[in-house]
Amino acid sequence: MTTTDETQAGGAGTARSAGRPRSAKAEKAIIDATLDMIGEGMGLFELSIEAIAARAGVGKTTIYRRWCNKEDLFVDAVATLKSPFPPPTGGSVRDDLIACMRVFQRDANDARSRCVMSIAMNEAERHPRLVERVSQAAIEPRKAVVTALLRRGMATGELRPDLDVALAMSSLVGTVMWYTRSQGEAASAPDLAERVVDHLLAGIGT
Amino acid sequence: MTTTDETQAGGAGTARSAGRPRSAKAEKAIIDATLDMIGEGMGLFELSIEAIAARAGVGKTTIYRRWCNKEDLFVDAVATLKSPFPPPTGGSVRDDLIACMRVFQRDANDARSRCVMSIAMNEAERHPRLVERVSQAAIEPRKAVVTALLRRGMATGELRPDLDVALAMSSLVGTVMWYTRSQGEAASAPDLAERVVDHLLAGIGT
Repeated sequence: MTTTDETQAGGAGTARSAGRPRSAKAEKAIIDATLDMIGEGMGLFELSIEAIAARAGVGKTTIYRRWCNKEDLFVDAVATLKSPFPPPTGGSVRDDLIACMRVFQRDANDARSRCVMSIAMNEAERHPRLVERVSQAAIEPRKAVVTALLRRGMATGELRPDLDVALAMSSLVGTVMWYTRSQGEAASAPDLAERVVDHLLAGIGT
Repeated sequence: MTTTDETQAGGAGTARSAGRPRSAKAEKAIIDATLDMIGEGMGLFELSIEAIAARAGVGKTTIYRRWCNKEDLFVDAVATLKSPFPPPTGGSVRDDLIACMRVFQRDANDARSRCVMSIAMNEAERHPRLVERVSQAAIEPRKAVVTALLRRGMATGELRPDLDVALAMSSLVGTVMWYTRSQGEAASAPDLAERVVDHLLAGIGT
């Protein structure tokens, strides 16, 4: 059996080398077990390496060979969760915003993503350093894409020149999040992203 | 010592009589302990009557004298948490919406309210009956107020006649929730409610 030492690419910034070929399978099982337990509502600090190992069907040593501690594992697991945002098309800002909102809608309908967001939002005071890492891995890159889109719209004249960017960002994300959580089956409507963007573009006033 | 048997008023629908005068103090301690533990991030089913009793400095029997089980206690605790919505002024729909958003902002900045909302949003699949009770006690009455305001605005011509009420509700609540959770100190800005309502009334497009 040969031992390779390839560097991991992608969002798994703190993961160590995947090691032997069969280790990739174990790694996937560990990440999946972590996300499944989060998705079942387990809090950040209830998660234990022991429970994750049992769920993944591996020994604790197999986990510690890759991650120094459960915080590192958690951040890597979260990073694998987020679908990538589509690249801007260069067409209208409306179309690009809709494409982003489709990704948000998909995430908002996924129990594991929902629970991660919930942890990131609610644990900031108790565990600022860990939440900051999750934010850097999973939230900030998306904020940057939407902010760039909003600024592009202000420059092209598609959006109001006096737009409050932070508020516009909150209304785009917040509307999708709240709607998907409160509207049951309607949360999966294929035209939701389009409706949200057009609703915010036009405003509710007369 | 006299024994009174007054019926509890207000949101504490399932609370039994407060009994002797000093019981009111114990009841408050029990409710506070429950809310504090929720606000510290404790999940619904980690909460135990034993731990609540210890935190409140009362015996378990004192709790069981008032509530049959922790679910009843939880629902009563949540019901005490929500500030009442201001009654409609009969002025503009804009002003009434702003008054409601001020209450939402205050709640969104309160760790205990945030954690309750998080529980209500994330536990729906695992614990549908309990979440339904929380929703009836704390969420539905507010939804009804905002829905009535939006419909009034459609009738008076202040809001678009073709308004998607569910979407408008989600954008009002979702914007405040998301902004307060992502913007740090700006979340406490005294003019936030006004800015959110005007932002949504006018829309972000040109």
